[in-house]
Amino acid sequence: FSNEEGGVVGSRALAGNLEQAALDKISSSGYTIREGIGKIDGNPDRLSEVAREPGSIGAFLELHIEQGSFLYDENIQIGIVEGIVGIEWWEITIEGFANHAGTTPMNKRQDALLSASELVLAVNKVAKSMEGRQVATVGKIEVEPGAPNVIPGKVKMSLEIRDLSYERMMSVYKAIEVEAQEIASKNSVRIGFESGNVSSMPALADGKIKEVIAAATEKLGYSSTFMPSGAGHDAQEMSLLAPMGMIFIPSVNGISHSPKEYSTSEDIARGAQVLLETILTLDKK
Amino acid sequence: FSNEEGGVVGSRALAGNLEQAALDKISSSGYTIREGIGKIDGNPDRLSEVAREPGSIGAFLELHIEQGSFLYDENIQIGIVEGIVGIEWWEITIEGFANHAGTTPMNKRQDALLSASELVLAVNKVAKSMEGRQVATVGKIEVEPGAPNVIPGKVKMSLEIRDLSYERMMSVYKAIEVEAQEIASKNSVRIGFESGNVSSMPALADGKIKEVIAAATEKLGYSSTFMPSGAGHDAQEMSLLAPMGMIFIPSVNGISHSPKEYSTSEDIARGAQVLLETILTLDKK
Repeated sequence: FSNEEGGVVGSRALAGNLEQAALDKISSSGYTIREGIGKIDGNPDRLSEVAREPGSIGAFLELHIEQGSFLYDENIQIGIVEGIVGIEWWEITIEGFANHAGTTPMNKRQDALLSASELVLAVNKVAKSMEGRQVATVGKIEVEPGAPNVIPGKVKMSLEIRDLSYERMMSVYKAIEVEAQEIASKNSVRIGFESGNVSSMPALADGKIKEVIAAATEKLGYSSTFMPSGAGHDAQEMSLLAPMGMIFIPSVNGISHSPKEYSTSEDIARGAQVLLETILTLDKK
Repeated sequence: FSNEEGGVVGSRALAGNLEQAALDKISSSGYTIREGIGKIDGNPDRLSEVAREPGSIGAFLELHIEQGSFLYDENIQIGIVEGIVGIEWWEITIEGFANHAGTTPMNKRQDALLSASELVLAVNKVAKSMEGRQVATVGKIEVEPGAPNVIPGKVKMSLEIRDLSYERMMSVYKAIEVEAQEIASKNSVRIGFESGNVSSMPALADGKIKEVIAAATEKLGYSSTFMPSGAGHDAQEMSLLAPMGMIFIPSVNGISHSPKEYSTSEDIARGAQVLLETILTLDKK
């Protein structure tokens, strides 16, 4: 099974947060996670035995490449992670009326793609207009019937919102919903939102650990910044068990999950130094 | 073979405008047009013999349902067709940069769908803002990679423009292209237009025949209006041979090419009366 799916299962098992259904998911290898664990001589039936008690671990630290281009672009050596963003998905359906693109005058159309386009722009506007680092994305769009000579009758599109604050995620969503209903009534189309199959709560880094990482970075003379992690990590699950902290190093050009993923030896060494310094300080406390 | 494909082949053969390649096209029946003609005991090799000389026919008249809802909505009994609109297709490609929807801040995105959405709205704005009955439609859109958690890197979408005037079609296209280049430079994406595989010139109805139809309608006491045909018809090919005229009757709810296509007996009778009256008048001339 793939590293990513394995990682989620591993940290969830440790956190005692693993649902049996997750083991039956077929991974990109063609095997279920359960079968994959068997193939590397693991025993999926004993996974529950690895669960740790909340409070039984003093701290959880994770060193990772950023998987984004912020540190690389800004030429900053260390990212002190404030937390891992929550993620919510929705499926949006826009229903207009499919019609002949030749015989239907412009002012008689209920073009679902026209309203969908307004909504894509509204999603962007809402995410940008609010204070903070929240992101909102429409990454998928499907038009029915989808022919050059037919006015689109129906559009389905995805909406993803991420932020460190669940409240802010919901504020973004509510503002988008208000815009959607304005677009719907202005254009005489129907717009509906349905919760998607991805939903994870934000996981905040521990305040004291962030301070210790910041002190280590300063002591070592590295440039640094506080920042959210836009991608998911093991630390997300581990924050249920223990105070959590994460250290980011730059990804060259922000590329990840690709053969082109690369971080320089110097950056890797700096990350390891900060991790060591942080462990030593936490150990003294 | 289907009526529509058969119709095009038939009128093209009469007009001496039939390319042999059109006969080798596989229709929705699974057979080529050539095979279909054979199946109804026709001889596809002798099609060229039916071609008529331009000028050898005094006039060509066609009575048809509107295939749109204009007459039905406006409660008008007869449409006097001014001509059959030309159609041009383009494929538009918008290239941005695909990126992680979690780790890429809003102000660092080159979201191809965002620019595509602006362009869909611009197409509509341009078509509506110019005088006339031109229509412009984006009916098809495809996003790459098309996942909820990836910022769209590339969008391909269709553009169709129809009008009675080829010059106006090109003015609409030029205005859309200008808007596209403004969007591209504002958003740092590339937008390109490629000619699509549909291109047909407008075919205008003969001025005198339009007058005769209008006089017939008035004599019979029917309400009428001059209007373009947004859909293609045999009369389009026949206009290459002879002065052409078309009479429209209302389609209930504008529905066509569907089992729900329907026109009332009264409307059909009115259309036939106008056709008869028009033939009698033209015959006297």
